This record gives sequence, structure tokens and C-alpha cells, in this order.
Amino acid sequence: MDIKREINIGLLGFGTVASSFYHIFSEQKKELGSIFSIPINIKKIFTRGSGHPVPENIKKLTVKNAGDILEDGSIDIVIELIGGIQPAGDFIIKAVSNGKSIITANKALLAEHGEEIFKKCTEKKAHIGFEAAVGGGIPILRAIKNGLAGDKVKSVYSIINGTSNFILSKMTNEGGKFGDVLKKAQERGYAEADPSLDINGTDSAHKIAILGRLAFSTSLSMADIIIEGIENITQLDISFAKELGYTVKLLGILKNEDSKIEARVHPTLIPSSSLLSKIDGVFNAFLVNAKFAGPLSITGYGAGGNPTASAVMGDVIEIVSRLVNGDIHQDFIISKIKNKLNVKSKKEIISRYYLRFSAIDRPGVLSKISGILGENFISISSMIQKGRKVEGSVPIVITTHEANEEELLKSVRECDGLDVISAKTTVLRIEDNIS
Amino acid sequence: MDIKREINIGLLGFGTVASSFYHIFSEQKKELGSIFSIPINIKKIFTRGSGHPVPENIKKLTVKNAGDILEDGSIDIVIELIGGIQPAGDFIIKAVSNGKSIITANKALLAEHGEEIFKKCTEKKAHIGFEAAVGGGIPILRAIKNGLAGDKVKSVYSIINGTSNFILSKMTNEGGKFGDVLKKAQERGYAEADPSLDINGTDSAHKIAILGRLAFSTSLSMADIIIEGIENITQLDISFAKELGYTVKLLGILKNEDSKIEARVHPTLIPSSSLLSKIDGVFNAFLVNAKFAGPLSITGYGAGGNPTASAVMGDVIEIVSRLVNGDIHQDFIISKIKNKLNVKSKKEIISRYYLRFSAIDRPGVLSKISGILGENFISISSMIQKGRKVEGSVPIVITTHEANEEELLKSVRECDGLDVISAKTTVLRIEDNIS
Repeated sequence: MDIKREINIGLLGFGTVASSFYHIFSEQKKELGSIFSIPINIKKIFTRGSGHPVPENIKKLTVKNAGDILEDGSIDIVIELIGGIQPAGDFIIKAVSNGKSIITANKALLAEHGEEIFKKCTEKKAHIGFEAAVGGGIPILRAIKNGLAGDKVKSVYSIINGTSNFILSKMTNEGGKFGDVLKKAQERGYAEADPSLDINGTDSAHKIAILGRLAFSTSLSMADIIIEGIENITQLDISFAKELGYTVKLLGILKNEDSKIEARVHPTLIPSSSLLSKIDGVFNAFLVNAKFAGPLSITGYGAGGNPTASAVMGDVIEIVSRLVNGDIHQDFIISKIKNKLNVKSKKEIISRYYLRFSAIDRPGVLSKISGILGENFISISSMIQKGRKVEGSVPIVITTHEANEEELLKSVRECDGLDVISAKTTVLRIEDNIS
Repeated sequence: MDIKREINIGLLGFGTVASSFYHIFSEQKKELGSIFSIPINIKKIFTRGSGHPVPENIKKLTVKNAGDILEDGSIDIVIELIGGIQPAGDFIIKAVSNGKSIITANKALLAEHGEEIFKKCTEKKAHIGFEAAVGGGIPILRAIKNGLAGDKVKSVYSIINGTSNFILSKMTNEGGKFGDVLKKAQERGYAEADPSLDINGTDSAHKIAILGRLAFSTSLSMADIIIEGIENITQLDISFAKELGYTVKLLGILKNEDSKIEARVHPTLIPSSSLLSKIDGVFNAFLVNAKFAGPLSITGYGAGGNPTASAVMGDVIEIVSRLVNGDIHQDFIISKIKNKLNVKSKKEIISRYYLRFSAIDRPGVLSKISGILGENFISISSMIQKGRKVEGSVPIVITTHEANEEELLKSVRECDGLDVISAKTTVLRIEDNIS
């Protein structure tokens, strides 16, 4: 093994996270050098100039060609903070091929191609750090990778998309329609100009894919995940949920029962008394249930320059330690990702459900609906019918006991075929077992 | 470096945590062996027979002399789960001297002698894991050691003693006197026969000493910590606090401002709307504020066989990884503990205060008290005087704005000298800046 005389970092990108990282790193560079007894340097920064303005004193570090970093034999660690699938993915594969270790905050890339990247890292004995890809400044991956390394994760309930959570919190606390609240969030910078990936659940699903692999030591692809967004959540649903003692949150859910796993992202009714229901705005939260450690909850800032850069900095220290120690072994938990556990399809999900029917105000409607549910062995837990017409029809809200999703949806389709039902029925899942 | 052909563990003690650990380890032994490509064994168990009954099938592993483990050249890792300062401390020092790595859940020992033990480990290139010493199954030390390794911890507010929290929660939610609730807690096994170390704050202070060293990379001794217990908390104080919008909790507090730190354990009035105020019973909670990552909160089971053993298991996996990789370097964060930061004495503390005076119901009392406070520049935030006599006197509750503790206590001593004050005034600190 070579004895390292210095460790050099190449930074890909200079956006919000990268510029925060540069700042934090610079503050600690001297101390790090002293602790590790060798200099740790940021040697080159690749930027196309579209990110944050590069301060005058570090302009000399910038390169216009990523290859200048990827092919530089003196660079030990490449930090990829460009985002998106390509060219980030090619850059990472090339860096690993050239013997470099990798740090990335790129959840989309890891969700889509993480397993190829892990494989390449193992093959080339490269280290990879990606704490910043899930939960921003919250050390959730370390909690699972290291803290619970000797435990068994049974379930994870998470709020992992700040934009969706901001919108649902506003709708819950201050009222307002989805579209209006989204517009406000965009004006204030809490939602992007194109917020689709955030509000349609894709961003949460990216994080669930990464988390699920570590939590269950299994291969997990985006196609395995049930994904529904918050686009169709109305103020009516939020109010009815409240009346029933629930709050609507976009949850990322992982469950492992008898080695059959569930991985899903969808708006969910959770008890208004639960901790997760109180996580408002741009906070992220994770409720992890482990076989031996029991329930753990972790909350904090899930995004933003400084929190995300703090996580990147933690990865830098871990990988520098490994390089200085000459450690060429893969992370314990990544080596464990060998199996492909069975993932439950939508048909196999068992859940409680919230159903909001739009009915024409006519006698006998309720008996027709409850008749169909009964024939399909869907058992009703509670029912609300009140108030006046909403756009020409009356809302009827029914919550069910636990039911199989396939049977539930079949019943709803039957109901939607009734002439007294005037619009597609809203179906939301309820999770009660959240502390 | 020797290539390891197997890794052998020696277990000191077979109480609740050790027997849980043995169970968890046995469940995973095969998988661990396969991941690390060498067998990982529990080779010997030292027990004096006073702990859990040793199952028949492992009786052959037990030794009656700790030396049989400490002097056994084939043992790589010693797990100390005996507790108490001695002989545990001697055992650990001997094990490290003999080149073994150490895992311990012994908070008292680490608080009192942690720095000598760390030094010895560094000298002998031994690894040490002690996640289980603070917060049971909650990976709080890893969050600070690894997750925030590249950040700066500004403050930690924690609930880290289950017994005290159970008693205060009961008194808050169900009423009752301290003594009666303690008795109930003992009957139900939530408090030990001799609960002194739990209720007088010592146990929390042990954990704060360990946490403070890691959080601030500083030497920290028990003598640096301000320690007050919950023995004198009355139902009257809990009720007045509630009326003022506060909940009384035994907090462990660490703060670092301008490299001057505060380390204290005391009953504290915190906003009833805060997350920490909702941590009831035997749960532990940590609210960590980091310069870049921002506020992080982590809650979970802070004690018990399985949660604590889960943390020990995480340490086993980390140390086995290091041994297999031939890593002979000390933990990054332990190497950082070099300095001795200044610790604020009681005199230097600035806080808001809750004062409960016992006054004889006579005109002019309030003007006398407020006069003394005014002369000492203690500014009053709120005042409650109502109700009838309690044991011959009337309670007057005053909360102050921020004040220096020395001046505050001087004023209180002056008040206590008044002939209208019939008992020693209760002084509690208020922390408002807890989210």
C-alpha cells in the first residue's frame, strides 16, 4: 500500500451545496490536516459557470472540462454535486474506474443506477459516501448503516420531501387550495419552477429506493416502489381527515414482514397525535422501527446548502480516514446487499383506507355504496355524510378496516360505475401504527 | 499485519444487556461470518453467576476468572458489561494492555476515567466502542462522531435518564407527590431499589460527560458539570409551570459559545409546545443544534436489554470491520479530543429563572421581594400570586428575564432572609430556545 502524502479532492459542480461545502471545508482544512497528519486539499473544481459565482480567490482551481478531474492521477476523492442522471453518472463511473473514491448527493442517480455504481466501487475497491442523498443534514443513512448494523429494520415511515410537506402543512394549518398553496411556495422559493418530481412522489421514491437497500440489504429498483403524489389532495380531504383525527402527509414507507417487503410513497392519513403529523414545513423526519433497538425517530433539515454540505463533509472525513488507514474494504452494509427480497405488489397491500365518494344527493346512495363494499368483504370503520353540495354533489367519506388493496379498488370501481356517483372516488391509505 | 483467520470475543458479565447481546449475536453469527469471510465467535463468558442464568448450551463458555479472558491471546475483542467503576476499569485497562479492542456500555467508568482509557487505547492501537453507554439503542454517539464529524455542535439538550423522566412524566400527567410516584416506579421496575444516582442527576451527568467530550472535542470531567436532581420538585412547581406554559424535565445540557462551554444537568422548565416536553416515560431524546446541519432531534429507547445490546452489536460490527481491514488508527473524533475548553462555572451561567417564594400572607410582601430583585437588576417577566395558604404560607411565583446566576442567587438569599419568607425559595432554570 502506498503511503499517502496528501489527499486531493476534485469537486464536480459549484451550485448551492458545493459552494456551502467549499466554505465549510475551508474553515476546517487546517484542523483536518493536523488530525490526519497530511494536507487535505480541494485541488480542482469543475463548473460550467451556471452555478454559484466562483469567488475570485478560487477561480484558479476551476476547470471547464470534467476530464481534468476524472483523469487527474493525483486526485483521490471526487465529490459529485451536479445532480441529474447524466453526465453525473458517466463522471462517477469514470472516476471509480480511475481508482478514485466517490461522494455524491445525487439521489436520482443512486436510485436509478445505485447498484451498478456500488458494484463498480466494490470491483475497484473504491469508497462511496452518499449520506447527503437522503435527508440532507440528518444522518439517517449512518444510523441505519452503522448504528443499526447489527439490528433488523422492520419498518421506516418517513417525510422526505420538503416541498410536498410544506404544501400539505400550509393546506392543513392555513387552508387554501393545492394550486394556490403551490404557487405561494414557488414564490417563496420552497418549490421549484417545475415542481413535478417533488409533488408527484418521484423524489421521495428516489430516497426510499436508497434507504430500502440499506435498511433491508436488498436490491430495490424504482419499479418496485408504489408511487403516488399529492397533486389530487383537496382541502376537502384535509378537513375530513382532521375531523377523523388524522393529518394528511406524503409518506415514504418501507416494511419488512417475513422477508416480504413493501416500498411505497403516497399521501397518507396518520393520527394527528403522532410525532410525524407535527413535522411541518421543510423538515424531514424518519421513524425507524428496529427489532431490538425499538422505535427511533430522527428529524431535521432535509435540504438546503449548509445541511446537505454538512453531510458531505461527514463523508469526506470518513473516506479520508479510510484512505489514510489504507482500508480497501467496502462498507459492511453495502457488502450485505446481495439478495433480492420479494416486494409486495399493489395487489398484496393490506391497509386501512379513506374513501371520499362524490354522490348525487338522492335517497339510497349510501345503501348502494355500503352494499358494494359489503359484497366485497370490505368492512366499514366510520362514515361521514353532511354539509351541502360541493359542485353539484355531496361528499360521503368512509374509512374502512384493514382490507386488501385489490379488493378495495375493485369495490371502488364498482361504486364509480353507479349512476349516483358523479366523480372518481378519492382513495387514500391510513396508517394507524405510527407513534 | 497479521491476516486474521477468525475473530474471538470475550464477554465480561452476563446480566440483562449481556444475555440480550448473546441472543442477538447468535442470531447473526452465521451471516456475519459469511460477510467478513472469517468466523466471528463468542469464545468465553466471565460470570460470577449473579447475573442472568446462563443457558445450558453455553455453560461450557463460562469462566470464573476474568483473567482467563484478559490473558487469552486468541481473544480480539473484550465486551465489558459488568458496570461500575471497579473491577470493570482494571479489566478494561488490562485488556487494552494485552492488545485487545474494547466495547463497553459503562457510562460511570467512561465519565470518570474515559480519558485515561482513550489514551491507553491510542497508545496500544486498540479500538474502543461505547455507543451503548449513552442513550441505549439510540445511535446518538455515531450521529455526533460520524454524521456531524465535519460540523460544529453548538448545543445539545437531552433527556437521558429514564427513571427521572418516568417520575416527572407521571407527576405531570397524573399528579401525585414525588415520593409516592417514586415508590410506584420502584414497584413497577422503572426505578431501582436505590434510585439515588438516577434521581440526583449523577447518571445523566455521566452521559453528559461522555457526550460533551465527543460533541466539543474537549476534555471534560464530572467536576466540570453542574448537577442538580429532581428530588425537590413538588407538584406545586409542576402545576405552576404548566400554568406558565412550561413542562418540568430533567435535562442534560451542553452549550458551546465562543469556545466557552456549559455542561449541566438540572430540572428545567421547557415550553410545553416543544418536542422534548412530549418525551414521556422511559424514552430518551436528544436535540442537537449544529452550525451547518441545523437542529436535529433523535428519540428512542434509552435503556433496556435489547436496545442496549443492539448498540453493542453495532460496535461489534464496526470493530470487526476495522480488525479485518487491519485498521490501527484511532477514531477520528477521539483523536480530536486534545484541548481543554473553558467550562463556565455556576456564577457565569446566564438563564431565565423560575422562583417560587413561600411568603407569609401579609401586605407588602410582593413589594419587598420585587424591591430586592430590582436592586440586583433582576428583571421580572411574569408573576403569579393566588390561591390560599399552603402549609401556612402563600406561594408567589416569579419568572425572570435573563439574569446572571450569581446575582440571581444573591437576590434570592436576600429574600430568604426576609421575615415574611417562611421557607427556602425554589429556584429552577427556564430554557425557552428549545424547538
